[in-house]
Amino acid sequence: MRTILIIGAGRSASSLIQYLLNKSEKENLHLIIGDMSLALAQKKTNNHPNATAIALNIFDENQRQEAVQNADIVVSMLPAHLHIDVARDCIIYKKNLVTASYISDAMQDLDAAAKEHNLIFMNEIGLDPGIDHMSAMKVINEIKDKGGKMILFESFCGGLVAPESDNNLWNYKFTWAPRNVVLAGQGGAAKFIQEGTYKYIPYCNLFRRTEFLDVEGYGRFEGYSNRDSLKYRSVYGLDDVLTLYRGTIRKVGFSKAWNMFVQLGMTDDSYIMEDSENMSYREYVNSFLPYHPTDSVEIKMRLILKIDQDDIMWDKLLELDLFNSNKIVGLKNATPAQILEKILNDSWTLQPEDKDMIVMYHKFGFELEGEKQQIDSKMVCIGEDQTYTAMAKTVGLPVAMATLLILNGKITTPGVQLPIRKEVYLPILKELEEYGVIFKEQVMSYLGYNPDKKFN
Amino acid sequence: MRTILIIGAGRSASSLIQYLLNKSEKENLHLIIGDMSLALAQKKTNNHPNATAIALNIFDENQRQEAVQNADIVVSMLPAHLHIDVARDCIIYKKNLVTASYISDAMQDLDAAAKEHNLIFMNEIGLDPGIDHMSAMKVINEIKDKGGKMILFESFCGGLVAPESDNNLWNYKFTWAPRNVVLAGQGGAAKFIQEGTYKYIPYCNLFRRTEFLDVEGYGRFEGYSNRDSLKYRSVYGLDDVLTLYRGTIRKVGFSKAWNMFVQLGMTDDSYIMEDSENMSYREYVNSFLPYHPTDSVEIKMRLILKIDQDDIMWDKLLELDLFNSNKIVGLKNATPAQILEKILNDSWTLQPEDKDMIVMYHKFGFELEGEKQQIDSKMVCIGEDQTYTAMAKTVGLPVAMATLLILNGKITTPGVQLPIRKEVYLPILKELEEYGVIFKEQVMSYLGYNPDKKFN
Repeated sequence: MRTILIIGAGRSASSLIQYLLNKSEKENLHLIIGDMSLALAQKKTNNHPNATAIALNIFDENQRQEAVQNADIVVSMLPAHLHIDVARDCIIYKKNLVTASYISDAMQDLDAAAKEHNLIFMNEIGLDPGIDHMSAMKVINEIKDKGGKMILFESFCGGLVAPESDNNLWNYKFTWAPRNVVLAGQGGAAKFIQEGTYKYIPYCNLFRRTEFLDVEGYGRFEGYSNRDSLKYRSVYGLDDVLTLYRGTIRKVGFSKAWNMFVQLGMTDDSYIMEDSENMSYREYVNSFLPYHPTDSVEIKMRLILKIDQDDIMWDKLLELDLFNSNKIVGLKNATPAQILEKILNDSWTLQPEDKDMIVMYHKFGFELEGEKQQIDSKMVCIGEDQTYTAMAKTVGLPVAMATLLILNGKITTPGVQLPIRKEVYLPILKELEEYGVIFKEQVMSYLGYNPDKKFN
Repeated sequence: MRTILIIGAGRSASSLIQYLLNKSEKENLHLIIGDMSLALAQKKTNNHPNATAIALNIFDENQRQEAVQNADIVVSMLPAHLHIDVARDCIIYKKNLVTASYISDAMQDLDAAAKEHNLIFMNEIGLDPGIDHMSAMKVINEIKDKGGKMILFESFCGGLVAPESDNNLWNYKFTWAPRNVVLAGQGGAAKFIQEGTYKYIPYCNLFRRTEFLDVEGYGRFEGYSNRDSLKYRSVYGLDDVLTLYRGTIRKVGFSKAWNMFVQLGMTDDSYIMEDSENMSYREYVNSFLPYHPTDSVEIKMRLILKIDQDDIMWDKLLELDLFNSNKIVGLKNATPAQILEKILNDSWTLQPEDKDMIVMYHKFGFELEGEKQQIDSKMVCIGEDQTYTAMAKTVGLPVAMATLLILNGKITTPGVQLPIRKEVYLPILKELEEYGVIFKEQVMSYLGYNPDKKFN
């Protein structure tokens, strides 16, 4: 029996655990599922003979180290900032480690120690980061292997509501941490390169500078720029590329509407509002509007946001019940962003029968044998239900597959890694197809920033 | 002879030193003027028999303490964060201290020690803070002394170019630290109260939510909100007031035009632009605009800012020569804000013959004997020349007057102070009138937020 320690049994662990339990007989696996909440861990083991649930307090060093010591490999599904103690234990007890999180500086510092002990610390192997790296590197390396020269790479990803559950004017529901959605794009200007020119977008303009993306069968989407598109320039081997852009996908119209909140200051998380607990939704809105002795909150809102009588933007606001004077915020010492999150949760929480959807879209521009060409690669994944969501599948399955590949000696490169090598992405992308995570590639002549396309 | 040590001989010390030298014979004063630059200190003493210039390195503890020890009173005109060592020396050697800066937490911490030794540490006694406190407290206390109840206080101040030197489309030149002008309003939402309701304005909307202010003989101005209008609520004894608003004054139209820079992200000081040194002004502008293979920087700028063909906003941009491809930024590793400052300096630097202007405007709303009334109090001060600017006069003269009043035992309250007591503001405001700093008060029935006034 090979023992896999999985730390953290939250939402994103469902598909991960299911995959490994399904393989446990054939692959001779035993899963130890540790969580602060024993009940949650037990729910995920579901009385499977090859799984044991344990209550695990990761802040208890003895308990944590004992669990690591008894495992053959460790999977950490903890929040990103909590991996590091587990990672240090893995160095001490010489265990391989898998996480779906961005490589922190502290994690990167363990690279030499991991290599010294021939350990594999595989990170960023969820969805985004994860499947984005793998699906991008596959095409980039294919182009390079044929002798092509990359000139453009754009990559977009979004967690959305599935078309069959899409029943609000925003075409959006929360399928992951709502707080991250409310704060998206804050903390510095977005930075990218277009045709060799560095471009910067401030937060107040971020949601007005979108690109359209068409996905056959799913209609038109839009992408707004991520904060630092240049982060993976060197990692992907794209130092000379002329265009590099990474963005977040929403249905068309979302960003323009979201920008209303940005302009009013409702996404601000830097200060606490006076008496937030007893404030009505209407009073919350009025806090961001000029005083007037007689004009209504509605008319002031229309004036400041320049919303015409027949503008659908207005209906989007009404749908959220923003002007209700009977609904009370009920949050003590809350920031504008925390209150907005609460208001949006009223309308955007996934219902039991709702399904989520992941959309990923890459564009690769390149020159091959003197000709400029483009490959667009698109993936859409719909969730099964509220447990095996598209998000849980696309985050958890690559983690599970990488864990098994490492156990079976198929992934061999030691050190602090992300999934950009063929030994990782080729088998995982292939196996993901069995689970419905399928990239459709389309070859065309180079469009790049063709104005007829961009300004249609 | 009474010795006054003045530390810092920069721009704001000119009128301060001139005032004290003019009184030195009659008042038996000797000035020690210490600055890092002996030449600068000597220039300010101007060979006056009652003044000595010394080279003073405030980071040299022995030298600093010797200078403090030999003085009867110390005036620190250093940048705000450098006062504290001088202040601690003043505790050790039992000297009174005067500064024009906001009271820092470190300064406030010396309150008990100052009181114990019966020392006066007078701060915030320049223009803003300074004259604003004094002129406001005078009217507020007069209203209260008559039995009136304050219901509204609004206070605006701005450093501008004098009408006779106002020859650009922005009606603005830099009369003080340009960096502070470029960064104005950043670092958090503006917060104030209007008619009992807390209001918040995010940075991206700050320059679109202005109030008009009319000053007879000088035309129409506008005010945009300062970051925290509630800072002096308790200090001024206005805890129950329904409206409290502090703002910065500009000529009408400045804020709307400035907002173009905010929207584009040009005032951002949080990141360094790629290859800023070799970038042209035109390339700088283009960094904030979408890529297009053929459209000009100009047409992209008009589109993103929605500037019509005949809109004066466009001429304001042209006047700054923003689209020049031959002018090079020439600043290494510069932020957008630093580059904007450099570009604006080309156009907005005061010329040798230019004069500056200070405008201050208070509104006091109150109820007296059952009637709502309002007092508007306005002050305009024009500079004499580039040395005795309105800014140097209004900052330096109150410091000088307070210094002499303390020396002469007319100001007696010990501790870390700001000028809100009658013993301070009554004699200083009276004497300031001799120097042309005159508040004109106008009594009227209460306007407050009368919509006809606000939306004319």
